[in-house]
Amino acid sequence: MESGSALKSFVEYTSEHHFPLENIPYGTFKNPESNEIHCCTRIGDFVVDLAALHDLGHFSGDNLKSENVFKHEFLNTFMALGRPSWTEARATIQNLFAEGSSFENDEDGKSKALFAFDKVEMTLPVDIKDYTDFYSSKNHAYNVGCMIRGPDNALQPNYTYLPVGYHGRASSVVVSGTDVRRPKGQVSADKKVPTWSDCKRLDFELEMGAYVGVGNELGKPIKIANASDHIFGLSLLNDWSARDIQVWEYVPLGPFNAKNFASTVSPWIITLEALEPFKIAHQDQDPEPMPYLREDNPSTYNIDLHVGIQSENMDAPHEVCLSNFKHLYWNVNQQLTHHAVTGCNMSTGDFLGSGTISGTEKSERGCLLELSWAGKEKVSLGNDEERVFLKDGDSVHMTGVCKGDGYTVGFGDCVGKILPALDDSEYF
Amino acid sequence: MESGSALKSFVEYTSEHHFPLENIPYGTFKNPESNEIHCCTRIGDFVVDLAALHDLGHFSGDNLKSENVFKHEFLNTFMALGRPSWTEARATIQNLFAEGSSFENDEDGKSKALFAFDKVEMTLPVDIKDYTDFYSSKNHAYNVGCMIRGPDNALQPNYTYLPVGYHGRASSVVVSGTDVRRPKGQVSADKKVPTWSDCKRLDFELEMGAYVGVGNELGKPIKIANASDHIFGLSLLNDWSARDIQVWEYVPLGPFNAKNFASTVSPWIITLEALEPFKIAHQDQDPEPMPYLREDNPSTYNIDLHVGIQSENMDAPHEVCLSNFKHLYWNVNQQLTHHAVTGCNMSTGDFLGSGTISGTEKSERGCLLELSWAGKEKVSLGNDEERVFLKDGDSVHMTGVCKGDGYTVGFGDCVGKILPALDDSEYF
Repeated sequence: MESGSALKSFVEYTSEHHFPLENIPYGTFKNPESNEIHCCTRIGDFVVDLAALHDLGHFSGDNLKSENVFKHEFLNTFMALGRPSWTEARATIQNLFAEGSSFENDEDGKSKALFAFDKVEMTLPVDIKDYTDFYSSKNHAYNVGCMIRGPDNALQPNYTYLPVGYHGRASSVVVSGTDVRRPKGQVSADKKVPTWSDCKRLDFELEMGAYVGVGNELGKPIKIANASDHIFGLSLLNDWSARDIQVWEYVPLGPFNAKNFASTVSPWIITLEALEPFKIAHQDQDPEPMPYLREDNPSTYNIDLHVGIQSENMDAPHEVCLSNFKHLYWNVNQQLTHHAVTGCNMSTGDFLGSGTISGTEKSERGCLLELSWAGKEKVSLGNDEERVFLKDGDSVHMTGVCKGDGYTVGFGDCVGKILPALDDSEYF
Repeated sequence: MESGSALKSFVEYTSEHHFPLENIPYGTFKNPESNEIHCCTRIGDFVVDLAALHDLGHFSGDNLKSENVFKHEFLNTFMALGRPSWTEARATIQNLFAEGSSFENDEDGKSKALFAFDKVEMTLPVDIKDYTDFYSSKNHAYNVGCMIRGPDNALQPNYTYLPVGYHGRASSVVVSGTDVRRPKGQVSADKKVPTWSDCKRLDFELEMGAYVGVGNELGKPIKIANASDHIFGLSLLNDWSARDIQVWEYVPLGPFNAKNFASTVSPWIITLEALEPFKIAHQDQDPEPMPYLREDNPSTYNIDLHVGIQSENMDAPHEVCLSNFKHLYWNVNQQLTHHAVTGCNMSTGDFLGSGTISGTEKSERGCLLELSWAGKEKVSLGNDEERVFLKDGDSVHMTGVCKGDGYTVGFGDCVGKILPALDDSEYF
């Protein structure tokens, strides 16, 4: 399935490490020397300041040599350049960090560009423009539909014809490590009269997200054959959800406050180039998609996705879900093309969430709503604790891993911890 | 109801003019001398370059004298300063353009700052961050509910408890005068199997929108008593809608492609200070809103809203709707406070659409879906033409007017014209 032999870098790491020379992820961090935020990559346990590498003259290719597109607080300037520049950057960085490169012994250069990961602060990598959340796991949609309408009508008729999605809230997308305040709002047990309450059904959603690198003009659609050239890369996404607020508010216009208080992204964006060895055939789609959503050889990626919960009493997260990116019914190309079919202009920095990624097995369910079957079944945390929804002090840990032949391409961590709700005096 | 006597400016205009000294709207335009886009205001038929006024030393107050916050392509920098700066700018401009001011005879200064409105290009005034669309006209929600579910269940149970809203698409918000391409997509007559089609039920929606000037920190709500200090001003909004695409896609997560192809805003933002004389008591709300949505003296504004349609055969638009901002069941303070109740961080440049503003009368219905009662009744264009939905070449003209004692405060125009759909070869 996956193939490839491990490249050799002068930086040391194990074959299980998420960030070998095959990966070359992109992020942003606060340079501890200058306190400026710059674009970066990562090799092993080192964060590499790309702005510093550019100042040192290492980006000498045609696309990147002039402007230092990495000396920015966000990746957007680099992302907007498009695939030839992305390919050039990747090749430059891979050559620079290969065993035996001249950079290996450039102690001065390395001291300017390399920083220990555990000593730096990672920041939100992209100035996110519009955030859209899809609903592309059929297993998830089926499970949620079963809870609401029963198995016979679990899926809406449109589900297998188009990638259902909704516009989300961009301002509250935060980077891994940011605490999440338990929201308050209106909830209603009888769905007729609401009460004021803190959220009692706070949930995570295991998702991945795709960042748009290159957009399209307003009024002009994106052909599916060209879709992947618009995608800069993928990251992990925890789309926190307030289930009790959601069921009261969401008819008829969709989720609003139930989702807009926070969505957590991992700091690293993994490029499609890095994921290429893990490409697999996409699952069969029946009915056949309409021509605008139809690809010659539809593909997806084989990415194992893990979710763990760690309570305040625990030293490490306990795994509650192991899913895989391949379970998505609609792939990223289809999501993007459908988004733009009416002429909607996609922009550099747009972020497309996949929707909760659930497999068919119970252990593959990507949120507590499914794992606890709407609160009916308790989920063990491996000690004497159980959960149906999240408690204050719980932290949720997500990660994603592609297993290669002798190496790993990973997504790092996407972590967030729940803070208790604010006092009513903050509200009225 | 409204009161106030007309201020005197050395610029001449009639008592019906939208932009007297009482208004002082904000926008952005391309300066025809420098070709730079700057922030501007308008007096009568003149657009006033505020960056030029600043360069001339006219903003000498404490808040605005140092940085030229008007020398930007968008109003965001000025908006972020907050109410003391907004008040100072308004007073400075009103003094400068008052009859007998020293500026009246400053021919050099006036030649640098004043430009004839019909000679300049207005641009999108705000770098719109997140765009949210509410659904705050109960008359509109009731009418649409009647069409779908019948009069007994027309309103959802949540409607009178919270301002229903959804996250919209910010990238496709365009300024008045931008043509709108008829979208294509999936439609389904039987709501079971879709077909590929250009939109046959293209509609306008008469809305107004509120721009957020000052935001709030993530995790911290906005108390309703403080809400109005976050609002920079209001403008007109036409939230174009593809009704046939909408009914197929919108269950369960709300409108998506049916709305994201274009939303047109007027170029001028009218401040709450300018609207103060037109403040009126808000309509009664039953049930009483929850404490977080409850105001001591809830108010709204008396703004007449006109919609006209002009076909390619016509020389001027024919009025199809006369509504009023006061028909909204939820006011802007309630919308903003509800939006942030879960801790959602509002940002400078956020735009909150009101939802279609319909009155109780047939002539007050704010979209063709209601005016034609889902296509059943024809709407006359005043000549021998009729519409149920928009045809190619139709342009929709919206305006808003507050009638004072001897003067008018107006919103200018919000106009867009429908272009024919693209050929299928653009899609697949």
